Amino acid sequence: METHGETQDAAARSIGDWAECSADPGYRAAVLDLLGALAYGELSAFERLAEDAKLAPDLADKAALARMACAEFQHYQRLHDRLAEVGADPQEAMRPFVEPLELFHRMTAPSDWLEGLVKAYVGDAIATDFYREVAVRLDDDTRELVLGAMSDTGHAQFAVDKVRQAIEADPRAGGRLALWGRRLMGEALSQAQRVVAERDALSNLLVGGQVQGFDLVEVGKMFNRITEAHTKRMAALGLAS
Amino acid sequence: METHGETQDAAARSIGDWAECSADPGYRAAVLDLLGALAYGELSAFERLAEDAKLAPDLADKAALARMACAEFQHYQRLHDRLAEVGADPQEAMRPFVEPLELFHRMTAPSDWLEGLVKAYVGDAIATDFYREVAVRLDDDTRELVLGAMSDTGHAQFAVDKVRQAIEADPRAGGRLALWGRRLMGEALSQAQRVVAERDALSNLLVGGQVQGFDLVEVGKMFNRITEAHTKRMAALGLAS
Repeated sequence: METHGETQDAAARSIGDWAECSADPGYRAAVLDLLGALAYGELSAFERLAEDAKLAPDLADKAALARMACAEFQHYQRLHDRLAEVGADPQEAMRPFVEPLELFHRMTAPSDWLEGLVKAYVGDAIATDFYREVAVRLDDDTRELVLGAMSDTGHAQFAVDKVRQAIEADPRAGGRLALWGRRLMGEALSQAQRVVAERDALSNLLVGGQVQGFDLVEVGKMFNRITEAHTKRMAALGLAS
Repeated sequence: METHGETQDAAARSIGDWAECSADPGYRAAVLDLLGALAYGELSAFERLAEDAKLAPDLADKAALARMACAEFQHYQRLHDRLAEVGADPQEAMRPFVEPLELFHRMTAPSDWLEGLVKAYVGDAIATDFYREVAVRLDDDTRELVLGAMSDTGHAQFAVDKVRQAIEADPRAGGRLALWGRRLMGEALSQAQRVVAERDALSNLLVGGQVQGFDLVEVGKMFNRITEAHTKRMAALGLAS
């Protein structure tokens, strides 16, 4: 796992636990939004990986994808249960994020097994980076939950291995997949911006309305860090970004 | 769980454990066939349930289907690991059953959420009945594994509740779904017969080549019992069979 300087700083300056922080209705609303988005993201990841399993070239690959889909579902279950535990309706919490995520998936439907792998790898990684960044601004209980839900499902290494093998076997695949990676990043940023624009509580959390030390300059830096990480990941796949 | 008279008799007349029985190459081949068919059936059930989850009318139903899909995958994993443990190649063992099962699924692609539920319910139940019947002819270790893999994933009650509600709300749905149930049973029997015709070791196991006390008359009776159970299940759904 990467070490994040930010994460360590934040642990040092804890803003308190859920019981303390959620007394602020704005904070509570922001966290319910965040957990709802994350929960639907996991359910949607389950569906996407199960769908990709159909494109698998052999039974071992198919089973590997199915296994990862189930790991995403376990994450979903934990987030769902947490929403219920704090008295929220999990369905309500997820609903605002269904359309942006479905739109993202419709705009980026993989046309083959390799595009599916690159999408799952890049998509998960962008989501993980985003949630790790946000996690440092959360109360201790929610941070632990979010980081747990982002834990590795083994997908990254699987995708890297398969894509590198495919590019070695057919170097022309690299150019096509590099374009594909850029398109994924563009669509992900576009949907993320839409969500931030529409969800007031969530964007207040991001731009320091509820939590100090996070302003628009910080948001810009965060997107830069995520884009840089994307570039490194594309290189790990053997692709220009 | 239902009590099966046969199961209890068989437990009384155990044919031995895997170590003893598998010394016979015909018996070993039959069991590898059986586990391969069952493993691919579970992987295929995972895919089918994940696919049906997309048709779910709301997020709670979607998550319920995804949860069942993951339970099927856990069964797959156990069968896969057992095949590997006894020195078989799980992919090889599953391969002969890919085409018959895919053909069954192509011939019976549900056109909506309710057809998907009825299919999963009826299909799982037929498979469970079949494997319970076969289980009584197996060595103790394999029997335990097969019965475990057939354990309830919670799908049956879920499907019954949803289908009954739908028929109450719109009684005309009942006629359409009853026809659908008959078609499913017909296609399942047709693919099962094809498998038995093509897999010598497996059919020897069924017609007493390797295991005493099971002949063609018995096979006929077995299919009758499975058909009767199907009739009862359709009635439980509120459908004429």
